[in-house]
Amino acid sequence: MTPDFSAAERAALYRAIALRRDVRAEFSGDPVPDEVLERILDAAHHAPSVGLSQPWRFIVVRSLETRRSVHDAFRRANAEAATDYDAQTASQYEALRLQGILDAPVGICVTCDDDPQRGNGLGRRTMPETARYSTVCAIQNLWLAARVEGLGVGWVSIVEPDELRTLLEIPKDVAVVAYLCVGYVTHFAPVADLERDRWETRAPLTDVVDYERYGGRAVTVSSAINEKA
Amino acid sequence: MTPDFSAAERAALYRAIALRRDVRAEFSGDPVPDEVLERILDAAHHAPSVGLSQPWRFIVVRSLETRRSVHDAFRRANAEAATDYDAQTASQYEALRLQGILDAPVGICVTCDDDPQRGNGLGRRTMPETARYSTVCAIQNLWLAARVEGLGVGWVSIVEPDELRTLLEIPKDVAVVAYLCVGYVTHFAPVADLERDRWETRAPLTDVVDYERYGGRAVTVSSAINEKA
Repeated sequence: MTPDFSAAERAALYRAIALRRDVRAEFSGDPVPDEVLERILDAAHHAPSVGLSQPWRFIVVRSLETRRSVHDAFRRANAEAATDYDAQTASQYEALRLQGILDAPVGICVTCDDDPQRGNGLGRRTMPETARYSTVCAIQNLWLAARVEGLGVGWVSIVEPDELRTLLEIPKDVAVVAYLCVGYVTHFAPVADLERDRWETRAPLTDVVDYERYGGRAVTVSSAINEKA
Repeated sequence: MTPDFSAAERAALYRAIALRRDVRAEFSGDPVPDEVLERILDAAHHAPSVGLSQPWRFIVVRSLETRRSVHDAFRRANAEAATDYDAQTASQYEALRLQGILDAPVGICVTCDDDPQRGNGLGRRTMPETARYSTVCAIQNLWLAARVEGLGVGWVSIVEPDELRTLLEIPKDVAVVAYLCVGYVTHFAPVADLERDRWETRAPLTDVVDYERYGGRAVTVSSAINEKA
């Protein structure tokens, strides 16, 4: 097949992937137009899904009152999380900026029907968790679309899912997958916040790629590949 | 912030998202150069991860012998899956092409450490499943990068994870998340296979977007939004 993406188009995708950030501190507060929000939601909705089940839902939250309640839930969960660490690490943890719930004008709570009618069960007998995975693929699509629109996205996982469930009236049989803060930013950070703040370092690619079997190294396997080619 | 992606760059991302397919039947068998494989793996490795934990690993499988064993595992799981349906649906199911394990020259098994040391637990006290979600974000990055490289990706979920675990020597405490078939294609299908084959239809975006609460409709909430603006 003749390549149907130009070098410039390929570079645009890699650039979006490289410059995407988990945004917490840089939200400008500028309003997000409905048509831009619709574009990033539509990008999410074009994710792959097991059996074409499209098990996701997106709850758009603009209400300041609701976002205040989400922020309260974050604060409770965050205070508890800090108790997991020894004194020195706890103080480093507490200095981290971990959410922009009130600064970002839009919250998006992403939910998943783990046993969707759509798709007629295809692909979920052996791996039922693929409905959830489909929903996460949708989130990553949204995240990248937001990046090229100049919108930051921050995924808040320091919150009790059941508190979100109550606040947003999510039924018991629907999974709460994510709460995303979405908004324009003053700038995108040059590196991940947790890298800048020396919480964690980025692993080299070679650390996470194996060949032929778990832990299999490239040098051994390259020759094996050539033998079979 | 001045937009840092041009209209053409934005369009390239949306195009990749729209034209990405779950490829089963169209693999050409052409070899995938190491440097192209490395680019899509590097795209995966640039996914967001909870606490910057980077809990993913990618096992690149080129061995035909191993792919034959994966294919056997698929056949067993697929035969069992067909028994879930009544006669008419089973016959429709059996006509579907659901994998390209032998046709695609590269398999990538994606695994996840659900309790990674990296990241020091950040963000996983309330939502431990976010390590797994990070790994799925990496898969979606890889899928989009593959699309702009002209590479098809097909996610095989009709296989017992424990069979992959045995075949690829994956430790018990590491989760088997996905088996992906990766290779160049003769063409990308104009619509999803399952849509073309009338297995399932695509839901309109309005079906999956709520406002302010689960099931909340836009028309009611728009006025609420304006009141708060």
